[in-house]
Amino acid sequence: MTSVDFWFDFASTYSYPAAARIGRAARERNVVVRFRPFLLGPIFKAQGWDTSPFNIYEAKGRYMWRDLERLCAALGLPFRRPEPFPQNSLLAARVALAGLAVDAPWAGEFCLAAFRAQFGEGRRIDDPSTLSAILTGLDTDPASVLAAAQSDENKLRLRSQTEEAARLGLFGAPNFVTPDGELFWGNDRLEAALDWVAPHPSS
Amino acid sequence: MTSVDFWFDFASTYSYPAAARIGRAARERNVVVRFRPFLLGPIFKAQGWDTSPFNIYEAKGRYMWRDLERLCAALGLPFRRPEPFPQNSLLAARVALAGLAVDAPWAGEFCLAAFRAQFGEGRRIDDPSTLSAILTGLDTDPASVLAAAQSDENKLRLRSQTEEAARLGLFGAPNFVTPDGELFWGNDRLEAALDWVAPHPSS
Repeated sequence: MTSVDFWFDFASTYSYPAAARIGRAARERNVVVRFRPFLLGPIFKAQGWDTSPFNIYEAKGRYMWRDLERLCAALGLPFRRPEPFPQNSLLAARVALAGLAVDAPWAGEFCLAAFRAQFGEGRRIDDPSTLSAILTGLDTDPASVLAAAQSDENKLRLRSQTEEAARLGLFGAPNFVTPDGELFWGNDRLEAALDWVAPHPSS
Repeated sequence: MTSVDFWFDFASTYSYPAAARIGRAARERNVVVRFRPFLLGPIFKAQGWDTSPFNIYEAKGRYMWRDLERLCAALGLPFRRPEPFPQNSLLAARVALAGLAVDAPWAGEFCLAAFRAQFGEGRRIDDPSTLSAILTGLDTDPASVLAAAQSDENKLRLRSQTEEAARLGLFGAPNFVTPDGELFWGNDRLEAALDWVAPHPSS
């Protein structure tokens, strides 16, 4: 079975519909998805930005919010514009990575739930209580997961992951990277990435 | 019959596949396409950029060229990276607008041919001889068209068109704008724009 690496930042707006869509789209093509959370902050900083480009470039930001609203409506996904934006995604990324690193059964669901909490319900993912509530709902112990997330080993893991993102040439999110090194950027390119590794039966 | 406004700059890379695709995609849905060339230069300048963001942001630029190459291959479109990039699209935009303003039968074909000359054949669209050769191939008189293109009236027309683009909140290209004012940005969103005005029979 072939695979695609799904690189995302929990604060990335278009990563929300991508995360919601990728499971089913990949299953339909028998493609395995590897979730790769990383931090856009250092990547943006290297481009000279101290916040999201959607905040820096007003017309682009205005468009994005309307576009995201339309996309979510078409997908039947709840949408609520988060305040503030972007949210600090460090803790969510650490929690996800702590689970993903040990193939925890809750890890994938945690990612979807964290996106939904932020972009569907307007909750703050930089608040440990939001993440704890999600973890509790996934039948795992929040205290031990949060401790593992904040361990030095796991902090270093996220740092390495973000450095790998930079090496791969990622400059935004979401991204889909194929085993042969092709990069597809943006929620819109999910199907193109899956088609690259495993052409869709009907296409 | 409903319509979509197709806003593009001749120097815009992703406007090339969009221009190549829009005719057929719109016909399949009985949608009329209005070609609206404009200049990205003043729009970029207002965002603080003196060249294409693909030149300013290296990783993004590197990705774009590879992505465009892949897209063109999938569409069966010839592709050759233009040098220099971006090209000065002023004259091509003026020629297109001079034709579009009077519903000249060659105007739409001219747009496709100018994109193909630049991105498919590596020719320079800031060279009047390139545009003259295209016009000759379309059975129209290059000298009179170029004169109309450079008239004060037509120069003003392009300026107004670009001001309208800014008022619409355009920040890049290509764009598809629906009669009810919805903006869709990017080659990838062509189908979404057409679906907005006229759902596809098979979707």
